[in-house]
Amino acid sequence: MIYITRQEHFNAAHRLFSPELSDEQNLEIFGKCSNPNWHGHNYSLFVTIKGEVNPETGFLINLKTLSKIINEKIIDKVDHKNFNLEVEFMKGVLPSAENIAMYIWKELEGTIYDLGAVLHCIKLYETERNFVEYYGT
Amino acid sequence: MIYITRQEHFNAAHRLFSPELSDEQNLEIFGKCSNPNWHGHNYSLFVTIKGEVNPETGFLINLKTLSKIINEKIIDKVDHKNFNLEVEFMKGVLPSAENIAMYIWKELEGTIYDLGAVLHCIKLYETERNFVEYYGT
Amino acid sequence: MIYITRQEHFNAAHRLFSPELSDEQNLEIFGKCSNPNWHGHNYSLFVTIKGEVNPETGFLINLKTLSKIINEKIIDKVDHKNFNLEVEFMKGVLPSAENIAMYIWKELEGTIYDLGAVLHCIKLYETERNFVEYYGT
Amino acid sequence: MIYITRQEHFNAAHRLFSPELSDEQNLEIFGKCSNPNWHGHNYSLFVTIKGEVNPETGFLINLKTLSKIINEKIIDKVDHKNFNLEVEFMKGVLPSAENIAMYIWKELEGTIYDLGAVLHCIKLYETERNFVEYYGT
Amino acid sequence: MIYITRQEHFNAAHRLFSPELSDEQNLEIFGKCSNPNWHGHNYSLFVTIKGEVNPETGFLINLKTLSKIINEKIIDKVDHKNFNLEVEFMKGVLPSAENIAMYIWKELEGTIYDLGAVLHCIKLYETERNFVEYYGT
Amino acid sequence: MIYITRQEHFNAAHRLFSPELSDEQNLEIFGKCSNPNWHGHNYSLFVTIKGEVNPETGFLINLKTLSKIINEKIIDKVDHKNFNLEVEFMKGVLPSAENIAMYIWKELEGTIYDLGAVLHCIKLYETERNFVEYYGT
Repeated sequence: MIYITRQEHFNAAHRLFSPELSDEQNLEIFGKCSNPNWHGHNYSLFVTIKGEVNPETGFLINLKTLSKIINEKIIDKVDHKNFNLEVEFMKGVLPSAENIAMYIWKELEGTIYDLGAVLHCIKLYETERNFVEYYGT
Repeated sequence: MIYITRQEHFNAAHRLFSPELSDEQNLEIFGKCSNPNWHGHNYSLFVTIKGEVNPETGFLINLKTLSKIINEKIIDKVDHKNFNLEVEFMKGVLPSAENIAMYIWKELEGTIYDLGAVLHCIKLYETERNFVEYYGT
Repeated sequence: MIYITRQEHFNAAHRLFSPELSDEQNLEIFGKCSNPNWHGHNYSLFVTIKGEVNPETGFLINLKTLSKIINEKIIDKVDHKNFNLEVEFMKGVLPSAENIAMYIWKELEGTIYDLGAVLHCIKLYETERNFVEYYGT
Repeated sequence: MIYITRQEHFNAAHRLFSPELSDEQNLEIFGKCSNPNWHGHNYSLFVTIKGEVNPETGFLINLKTLSKIINEKIIDKVDHKNFNLEVEFMKGVLPSAENIAMYIWKELEGTIYDLGAVLHCIKLYETERNFVEYYGT
Repeated sequence: MIYITRQEHFNAAHRLFSPELSDEQNLEIFGKCSNPNWHGHNYSLFVTIKGEVNPETGFLINLKTLSKIINEKIIDKVDHKNFNLEVEFMKGVLPSAENIAMYIWKELEGTIYDLGAVLHCIKLYETERNFVEYYGT
Repeated sequence: MIYITRQEHFNAAHRLFSPELSDEQNLEIFGKCSNPNWHGHNYSLFVTIKGEVNPETGFLINLKTLSKIINEKIIDKVDHKNFNLEVEFMKGVLPSAENIAMYIWKELEGTIYDLGAVLHCIKLYETERNFVEYYGT
């Protein structure tokens, strides 16, 4: 069993805000992250998959293929976008780093499986010093 | 003459968009950076000042003082803010990295001078691979 | 289950030295790290906690809260301090990176639990190329 | 149980190419990585070992010892070398990052064990955004 | 006057070897860098240009344009290539980091000028701890 | 004219304290950096030299030679040392980052000149976000 990881980047706007809470509650829970005029981040995304090395190629799967999939399924849909308004796969979901990681997992899991590998971890940096990891359960 | 640098971080939303241009022109010049729903960045700001070392303290000026000034004059006004809508010192200015660096210079130059040092360079990373530098002229 | 991590920094002095060993043994085991005049490091500390995402906030716990706890319980007690002489929670303990990580775990475990999460890992960089990880058992 | 990690670097040339495949197949699978004139990388290697902390020294094993072993058993044999032509411990093996990690494991496992610790993970960066991890099974 | 920088990466093989020197002299001057079986690097290239900010766009020139030029004129010709055998613009030149930086300058200077900016600096990392800078004279 | 830079690391203890000031003044000026029990840093040192490229070697001077000189003249004298008590070339000098950079310049300038190059800049990181630069005048 080998684990391989590809790192990708994207920039996006978001706002931490729950429509089910009052403005006061939103401000109390989310602080300046609830700014109605948005703020944004350079997100850094690490996708780790695992499986057997193919003896013919020495690869689990080609990292270029993994990069292409992440770009098509995730980066093209979130880069330079607004997570609250424009990202179809997170519609109605509060775009915390935790939730973004879990919904990226859902988008990638099946495609990775079809390639003969298993999605192992989604790691998402929101800032240089804050990151989340999701292992699917 | 010694040069000292302090690095600070902030997260903000912006949109590259000129109200004097048509929507087509904005899209052509700025591409996905003109997204009307905003996007954002983790900006990394390096402020370099120069001057003589004080023989009594071994400092040009204390880097904690420099950090405090940058936070009060810049970070508190831009962190988790929208550059197009909320940053007073850039009102009416297109928030490209180039312009942000030049307007940060204007905000800091006088205060640094009052402390007995000279502002030398504002360096601003918009993404990990793109940055601008401004030396005041 | 989600894992979230906050990175913090501190600077400290230490000396690798066991009072139960002779000077020759200390020098043989610890080399220049046993220098009686001390040396020091910029330590980089990663605290990872795990638990369920709160559906109302999208958070496990707010990373600002996690940062505040790490600062109050650890950073304020070790930053710009001498590990051998001044750090209460490591009194009588040889301040190797391994031991520092294990004693930081002890300081944080209960507080994290009280917040409804579980401490997962303490990762401590002593230099850019040397780090230790402790998972509590 | 504590985990300690030492990072080392080396530069090497390689070519992804299987002699059992035709030139067309090699090009199709490996793309520009199959260039017959070679290309190369600054590899970054993280070796993680685990075990009990020695109460007398505060160490699992001294990280200087770990560094010395990695240099003698691995770095001296691969640095500024050609993986396809000159690395004895990978003779006849396609030098993908996956395979390099697995063969480095084989070279180190026994020596680490003899020191009273257990090899836990070989992590190898081939580029800044691509890395593999191997845990021995 | 503003300075903007774009960072790009490429991987290549090379060998430090002068055909005008004997094998002994090559080995004495270049050490293991003269290995006849090649070695390689992940090069990191920073291209800095300078000029006036266009008041209409807030840009010196769009960093995407700068990235495109660097890729077309340099990266496509050197990535996954052998500097001694395959890079047309360095034919007959010893591929030290110094020479690579100076020949990249020659390749880019005119194109940057045609865009209304001035090439300011080529900075090239050969390893994490070794880099060269060339300012054109 | 080419500029080449070598980065080296060292760990040391220090204390910002002037014997000509009272304890109250020391605390007021230097804060927790004046801790009588010391604190320390992982310093990162960048030495930049400039000169003509030797057409025979493609080098200004071999970066291995530059590294060797920095290690012999600086690193061996400061690594795992106490700047206030043990570093001969800074005897009686307050070990601020500014002063350390200026005294490292003095130690290296002549040797670099003897090699046929000119010392251009000493850049010293005291922490990840604080650094100083000295150009010799």
